[in-house]
Amino acid sequence: MSFLSSASPKLAPWKVLLVDDEPDIHDITKLTLTRFRLDGRALSFVHAYSGAEAKQVLARESDIALVFLDVVMEKEDSGLEVARWMREDLDNQFTRIVLRTGQPGQAPEERVIVNYDINDYKEKTELDRTKLFTTTFAALRAYRDIMKVEEARRAQLNYREGLERVIAASAHIFQQRNLKDFAGGLLQQVVALLRLENSMLLRLRGATAISGENDYEILAQIGDDDATMLSADVLAQLDAAKSNKISRLQGDTYIGYFPNSSGKASLLVLKGVDEISEIDAKLLEVFCSGVAIAFDNILLTQEITDTQAELILRLGDVVESRSNEAGNHVRRMSEICHLLACAAGMPDDAAAVLRHAAPMHDIGKIATPDAVLLKPGKLDAAEWEIMKQHPSVGLSILDGSQRPILKAAAVIAHQHHEKFDGSGYPQGLKGHDIHLYARIVAVADVFDALMHKRCYKEAWPIDRVVAHLREVSGHHLDPVYVELLCQNIDQALAINERFPD
Amino acid sequence: MSFLSSASPKLAPWKVLLVDDEPDIHDITKLTLTRFRLDGRALSFVHAYSGAEAKQVLARESDIALVFLDVVMEKEDSGLEVARWMREDLDNQFTRIVLRTGQPGQAPEERVIVNYDINDYKEKTELDRTKLFTTTFAALRAYRDIMKVEEARRAQLNYREGLERVIAASAHIFQQRNLKDFAGGLLQQVVALLRLENSMLLRLRGATAISGENDYEILAQIGDDDATMLSADVLAQLDAAKSNKISRLQGDTYIGYFPNSSGKASLLVLKGVDEISEIDAKLLEVFCSGVAIAFDNILLTQEITDTQAELILRLGDVVESRSNEAGNHVRRMSEICHLLACAAGMPDDAAAVLRHAAPMHDIGKIATPDAVLLKPGKLDAAEWEIMKQHPSVGLSILDGSQRPILKAAAVIAHQHHEKFDGSGYPQGLKGHDIHLYARIVAVADVFDALMHKRCYKEAWPIDRVVAHLREVSGHHLDPVYVELLCQNIDQALAINERFPD
Repeated sequence: MSFLSSASPKLAPWKVLLVDDEPDIHDITKLTLTRFRLDGRALSFVHAYSGAEAKQVLARESDIALVFLDVVMEKEDSGLEVARWMREDLDNQFTRIVLRTGQPGQAPEERVIVNYDINDYKEKTELDRTKLFTTTFAALRAYRDIMKVEEARRAQLNYREGLERVIAASAHIFQQRNLKDFAGGLLQQVVALLRLENSMLLRLRGATAISGENDYEILAQIGDDDATMLSADVLAQLDAAKSNKISRLQGDTYIGYFPNSSGKASLLVLKGVDEISEIDAKLLEVFCSGVAIAFDNILLTQEITDTQAELILRLGDVVESRSNEAGNHVRRMSEICHLLACAAGMPDDAAAVLRHAAPMHDIGKIATPDAVLLKPGKLDAAEWEIMKQHPSVGLSILDGSQRPILKAAAVIAHQHHEKFDGSGYPQGLKGHDIHLYARIVAVADVFDALMHKRCYKEAWPIDRVVAHLREVSGHHLDPVYVELLCQNIDQALAINERFPD
Repeated sequence: MSFLSSASPKLAPWKVLLVDDEPDIHDITKLTLTRFRLDGRALSFVHAYSGAEAKQVLARESDIALVFLDVVMEKEDSGLEVARWMREDLDNQFTRIVLRTGQPGQAPEERVIVNYDINDYKEKTELDRTKLFTTTFAALRAYRDIMKVEEARRAQLNYREGLERVIAASAHIFQQRNLKDFAGGLLQQVVALLRLENSMLLRLRGATAISGENDYEILAQIGDDDATMLSADVLAQLDAAKSNKISRLQGDTYIGYFPNSSGKASLLVLKGVDEISEIDAKLLEVFCSGVAIAFDNILLTQEITDTQAELILRLGDVVESRSNEAGNHVRRMSEICHLLACAAGMPDDAAAVLRHAAPMHDIGKIATPDAVLLKPGKLDAAEWEIMKQHPSVGLSILDGSQRPILKAAAVIAHQHHEKFDGSGYPQGLKGHDIHLYARIVAVADVFDALMHKRCYKEAWPIDRVVAHLREVSGHHLDPVYVELLCQNIDQALAINERFPD
């Protein structure tokens, strides 16, 4: 219809293997089929002059559409052996086989077609120009038809395997328990799934009037550095996704938009998506809809966990506020305990439980009368006895729960005034009879009291604090954790700076 | 190899359609091919005597393997039209077409094979016994080969569609936020996925020495009643799955075993699984591995939520314990508020927030001095002023959080002593200026104080409590929630019985 169509790229020819020990047969077949076309595609010929040679060619070239196969060559049944070998040993079910024989007596048509998985049988004398043409046409058409179905089968298989990869990748994603692992795992899976090595997961920061880079918090990133990933171009696409609230593929960049119930959307940036196949694009869609759910779940869990942490801190605050201690004591305690636990190589889960439980250590003071708790001067013996009840009261408040955090809080409340040498209260426990958590809390508690001003003392300088800690190490405090605190004193001071009195 | 093999069921024959306007051709073809077999399968013939009739047969019977098609019938090109119609209009690409013509001049071989999507072309004179046999053999073999690939394609397609259903079902499962919805949703999806209408999800109760029905807590169930589902047989399989810690298909029953990180395994019982296909069994496996993850996630979320609820109750307890009020006051308040919220048709989410926040209403009392809080007699004016500070102190403790529960707790702490007619404190808010949550808490708080013994009063009988509530309705309390409480008084009393002083 147009001038341009004649300039369309030349279609790949159908590959035809001619197997015959007579060179003349090769020449005449080639000549006869010179002008042959099926679906606009011509023929290209591969030649073999013996059964052995034919096997070599067939083993090497998997895209042969049709074989014209002579029967009698180096042996009387060489061609039949090639046919058998193709189907049985090479497991080639698709190449069409047309047997051509000059001595039909050697291979009677009916016997051959029943015993060998061939597609047509011709005596050489039968094959005039027209018959050769129509035989070739029918055979190639059959090859085309079966390959079309085979390709559709392979496409389904590919897609099915893709879905299986998506399911495996999603399973991995759904097993992540916190935002950091989720974000990292997500990009890992995107790379595994689509071999896209430039990707980034962002989260919208809280609502802001100013648009730009600062709107987005990068949760995880693979590949390019920020500069390229957050180019003006990508930013414009992110802003568009944000305001239109939809995922979109534009140019080589896919922007996945995942809203969530808490109203804070997240965005997935994938670069190089123009090179992925249609199937991969569909798999990406399936995967991303799962990601959206997993992301929502993660944020919900995070919300509950954060609420829990905040509740505990406020509970700690409330207790401390009665003793007129400044508000950030429990936050610092919590972080220093976590620092020591991590430094000691405690598993993440156990360290997280300690971090959440530590702020409740003084909860028993809730029951300490004002007259004792708020007395400005030194306590007398009777008052001191009342004061020393707060660990047992703390235990009674927190006791009996099955929750790991509350169980930890109970033992911490009960044992945080025990001393390593057995001189503490209320039970006078010694060494490792004191729960690990309580020994860590004791170190953090003493450190915090020394570092800060209290009604009964000034804040001490750091050198004096470290010296004192070393002095009481092994007596009041577990030497292991005193040592870990001294080794990580810079991080401990950074915590103090983050949460001043 | 065995006597039995000769008794194997007769294989379905290949269906061949003969289209020719000469009845003799039908007869001779049939006769010639009487003893034909391919892969042990004979032929069955369908007959048509015109192009129009051939179309009718082809439209009706989709499993015709081969058509012998005459060219000249009611029209000179009737056979060619049937061939065109089959491929283009009927969209039948698989049935093999062998054109048979008595007048090759009407349809020259080369032109016909190029222009029509047929598989072989024979002049009737060519078709001796042998040729007819080999032509049929080659055509049916080609049909068999293409159908084999086509069936493989369809199997992949089925499996792929199954995986897509699994993904959709899993997405549904992963969106569930609590155990009840999860359990119900799971069985719903199992039914949708596998059409298994007898299924049950159970959870192992805590470790117990006694084995039996009581080991299992039924979370959800579809189909059969307990009796059948928990038969001795099924129980034995459950026990085996429990002790071997693996999923297993036995007889018609599939037992899915899902361990989880908290150590409490769950079990899925599916009956009638023997009737599902191999593909479905594989899909079930894929689905169940996703379910295991979702289940673990649900339990984790549940654990955090439960910990949070328990923490809040213990925080409430701690505060109440200072006022010497008995421990269950906050639990009752929490439940009665939830009862009133649900009765008023409040959305689940909002009602859950109220339930969690209500126990913190008196948190400000933490700062009330012992001298005021614990004074046995009546407070004087100055003491009363101090007492009345607790709502503002509560607000200051809880203020500034972004967490829904803490935000709700802050407003409740601040406003729960406001009165509907504006005569309350600290702000003197009136009617709907008082937050809905605070109005509900006020009703529950007054109800609980009246129903129970306090240091300043005895417990009142229910009639007197209801009479008093009606009296202060519209003055102290919001009449809507007083009315709802009176309407649901039985449930409120049941709560009081569950949590006695």
